Amino acid sequence: MRHARLPASEEIAIEDVFHALSDPFRLEIVCRLAAEGEASCQALEGDRPKSSVSHHFRVLREAGLIRTRNEGATRMNALRREDIERRFPGLLSCVLSARAD
Amino acid sequence: MRHARLPASEEIAIEDVFHALSDPFRLEIVCRLAAEGEASCQALEGDRPKSSVSHHFRVLREAGLIRTRNEGATRMNALRREDIERRFPGLLSCVLSARAD
Repeated sequence: MRHARLPASEEIAIEDVFHALSDPFRLEIVCRLAAEGEASCQALEGDRPKSSVSHHFRVLREAGLIRTRNEGATRMNALRREDIERRFPGLLSCVLSARAD
Repeated sequence: MRHARLPASEEIAIEDVFHALSDPFRLEIVCRLAAEGEASCQALEGDRPKSSVSHHFRVLREAGLIRTRNEGATRMNALRREDIERRFPGLLSCVLSARAD
């Protein structure tokens, strides 16, 4: 499956970021990746149905929040921390603190 | 028209806040209120159709981002700045800076 091109850092739109973060599962993925560095789709999805999970990962990719790479048959996900920080300084730590409540 | 009870500060949910901010018009309302203090629905809505505008104001109210009061026949809106800051410190300034890009 081809993935749409990831937005470049300067193309990341704040409304897309907020939309991506408005879902509890996507917010959880972002927070876990911030804590763990990198994680596979499998590790993040738990027992959710694959079809809905794929959608969530795509929203996060297209919003510019995560990048993915293939490691063998496994898809690994990571937060685009530097890109987000460059584009919206301080936003990520706000988000992580907010969810910690 | 009765308005649903505004969420108390501790009830404000971050996903609801992000959902509210994921729309360009709602984000614009938040930024204008941050700059202007208080503004009427009329001043904020421009030439948008009233029905869609009402929806946007309701989303912002129910997310805990704005409060409204009646001044005669006019509805005045204000940001719940202290409540948001107490609940999610630093988030509002991040949002305002992000949109300034």
